[in-house]
Amino acid sequence: MSDIKVRLTTASVITKMVSMVRWKPGAADRLRSAALELFHERGFEQTTAADIAEAAGVTERTFFRHYSDKREVLFGGQDSLRQLFVDGVAGAPAEWSAAAIVEHVVQSIESYFDADHRSSSRVRQAVIDANPGLQERELLKMASLARATAVAFGERGVPEPQATLAAESGVTVFGVAYRQWIADEEESSFAAIVGEVFGELRAVTKG
Amino acid sequence: MSDIKVRLTTASVITKMVSMVRWKPGAADRLRSAALELFHERGFEQTTAADIAEAAGVTERTFFRHYSDKREVLFGGQDSLRQLFVDGVAGAPAEWSAAAIVEHVVQSIESYFDADHRSSSRVRQAVIDANPGLQERELLKMASLARATAVAFGERGVPEPQATLAAESGVTVFGVAYRQWIADEEESSFAAIVGEVFGELRAVTKG
Repeated sequence: MSDIKVRLTTASVITKMVSMVRWKPGAADRLRSAALELFHERGFEQTTAADIAEAAGVTERTFFRHYSDKREVLFGGQDSLRQLFVDGVAGAPAEWSAAAIVEHVVQSIESYFDADHRSSSRVRQAVIDANPGLQERELLKMASLARATAVAFGERGVPEPQATLAAESGVTVFGVAYRQWIADEEESSFAAIVGEVFGELRAVTKG
Repeated sequence: MSDIKVRLTTASVITKMVSMVRWKPGAADRLRSAALELFHERGFEQTTAADIAEAAGVTERTFFRHYSDKREVLFGGQDSLRQLFVDGVAGAPAEWSAAAIVEHVVQSIESYFDADHRSSSRVRQAVIDANPGLQERELLKMASLARATAVAFGERGVPEPQATLAAESGVTVFGVAYRQWIADEEESSFAAIVGEVFGELRAVTKG
């Protein structure tokens, strides 16, 4: 009797987990696509969470299970990006220089910027570029990325000002490379563009 | 008769001009000193324009003749700074490289950061560092400085991404050097610190 109950519970828990795993990424992606389309067509201010949920065919409650607010649809990825920068700096071999680490870290986030994401990234950027409040938000997110990266360099023993300069350079290159990667008709990979931009940065800073 | 009237008018206009010249810088400086002291003691939010005017011994109307609001006491200088960057880039010899221009421009703003301003700059930065809203404002001002400088590089014919990279590097070095210049017990000149920070940037970006 208790054995049957346990087996039933286990089966129902597994079924629920499988359905969550199947359902979660699908709904988050559908919500993101619907949101970007609506932000782009109507404008960010004119789109509500309810509009996004409706367009994605889910309830508003489901929207808020995935995103704390509509702004997070645009900027949630920047928190993951910050983690990639911080983990990349923390996990680099002990003997690497700050210059080597920063270039490697920015190169290695390519997995985040694969060809599939290029067109949605273009729409996302067009939405941000059309709204001064979102532009400010993006600048502050980039500043927070640079600060977190500088702290990660500090924690590996890189002194100031090298820690801040390495972090700021990495974030500058990232920002410039990202803009190039989403430019009209650009087809080079993110990593290839990052390599070129680091080369340009060295040329521009040489004495 | 008409000759006497002209002479009287001229004398009274000159007297008025002299009194304006004498009074204007004095009042602006007194207001700034009073504002920094109050922001530092009571906090930025807890200080009103009326408090500042009273502490400086002027009317509130006089305060608003010099500053559009209390935040401008802290950030008004950044608009002049942006102009110095832009004019420096625009006015550099035609044959100079972007690397040479950016280093020269950041060095040459030393006149703005002379020894007399070091202690008031320390207080100003402490006020900003204590208030998240002011920190955001400062980050946005720095971003606007970088953008304006990139545009100035573009106008001299420097292509992208060099224009943005040169501008961002200059603003990064400026920010790091400024923090060092106002550090406790730092006595090196602003220009000397800028030179060192550019050296560190080259080391950190070399491949």
